[in-house]
Amino acid sequence: MFEHLKIILVGTTHPGNIGAAARAMKVMGLTQLVLVSPKIFPCAEASARASGADDVLSNAVVCDSLSEAIQDCQWVVGTSARDRSIQWPQLYPAECARKLANHPEKVALVFGREHSGLSNEELDHCHALLRIDSNPDYSSLNLASAVQLMAYEIRNVYLSQQTPERIELPRWERGVDQQTMDRFYQHLEQTLIDIEFLDPQAPRKLMRRLRRLYNKAEPCVSEMNILRGILSATQTTAKNHEKQD
Amino acid sequence: MFEHLKIILVGTTHPGNIGAAARAMKVMGLTQLVLVSPKIFPCAEASARASGADDVLSNAVVCDSLSEAIQDCQWVVGTSARDRSIQWPQLYPAECARKLANHPEKVALVFGREHSGLSNEELDHCHALLRIDSNPDYSSLNLASAVQLMAYEIRNVYLSQQTPERIELPRWERGVDQQTMDRFYQHLEQTLIDIEFLDPQAPRKLMRRLRRLYNKAEPCVSEMNILRGILSATQTTAKNHEKQD
Repeated sequence: MFEHLKIILVGTTHPGNIGAAARAMKVMGLTQLVLVSPKIFPCAEASARASGADDVLSNAVVCDSLSEAIQDCQWVVGTSARDRSIQWPQLYPAECARKLANHPEKVALVFGREHSGLSNEELDHCHALLRIDSNPDYSSLNLASAVQLMAYEIRNVYLSQQTPERIELPRWERGVDQQTMDRFYQHLEQTLIDIEFLDPQAPRKLMRRLRRLYNKAEPCVSEMNILRGILSATQTTAKNHEKQD
Repeated sequence: MFEHLKIILVGTTHPGNIGAAARAMKVMGLTQLVLVSPKIFPCAEASARASGADDVLSNAVVCDSLSEAIQDCQWVVGTSARDRSIQWPQLYPAECARKLANHPEKVALVFGREHSGLSNEELDHCHALLRIDSNPDYSSLNLASAVQLMAYEIRNVYLSQQTPERIELPRWERGVDQQTMDRFYQHLEQTLIDIEFLDPQAPRKLMRRLRRLYNKAEPCVSEMNILRGILSATQTTAKNHEKQD
């Protein structure tokens, strides 16, 4: 899935970030990685941080320039933390992910150097800029983290377009119906009378409050069995006590 | 912002992940980091990977257990990759972020060990489980990446609301803290022993199931008072019965 979508890392300085980016991609189902003039690659640190995503790493295409990397792409988004004198159209992550994921042609999402980002010449190749909002006092989003966020958003697009599966729960994990809840409340009320916690002459709002509480819990079948068991054990205790009065 | 929200890392093995998590938090505006029994901390590698988020790291609280870490929290979400025999309520990232960000009380988002996640005993403290969907063939989401995704989603909530409302509830309608819940569970367990519903020699999973049930209900102060009152009345009944045996 998403074979039409390349993640391009330009001029990456730390090989650890390349490995971590490969892992970030694969965990969300992305596979197409392109490296433009990486400082150090291949490299043991990259492989270590890839941790099982070494196939993404070993299939990575290495290029000398961004323009070479995007030859077959129709739509290219760059990332940039800096403000530019010339404004490119800006996209936020979810919106950008939607356009990338649903694009009918080949597309690329381009990440710049750790410290200096993309050059103006590189941005000239981009149709839009991705803007990831961050803390204005500390906007140092790690490169692989940025890749992770976008891979996650791209997977969200995929998930939102799947027909949602309804998880089939085992019978005892399913919620109980209202008739069962009503019978439980009757049993609870009688038990509270039996242990003299509830005075039927002055019930106040006790049962209403207890209904609200147990409704919030949405008991499943096994939990309801436990609750009913506790009530029965309480009543047995109360009955024995009464008999001996 | 989001001072009511703790990120808790339990039993982290790689100090680099602690540093990267601190950076991931700060870049999205989160500050409250708690470390439960980290393997190695403090550590130069953690500081290096924090890269400017060293204030989050140096302010991190270190605890011996998860239950200590969440004493003042009212709502706790765990993360888990494994399927469990007992199902906790599951939340997806955006939904989970919304609940965390808008919660009127203190809340915690808990991340487990790199390889083994959270133990069942630790999950017993959680009200819900976060589920981050990933590639079924390679679901190895890095710990700091998971923190990054959630910090990003939490910031998204902030951005979408700008002035997030935190509704001020009357005292008796406010949720109770985990210390209060712990005392309730102790009282409940003792009462179930008193009425001979729970055999301390063969407790099975009873208390775990009851914890899940009452955690789902998120009792408020007035509801907790009622529950404790019912337990005390039950114990009185059981005691009178015993005396007359």
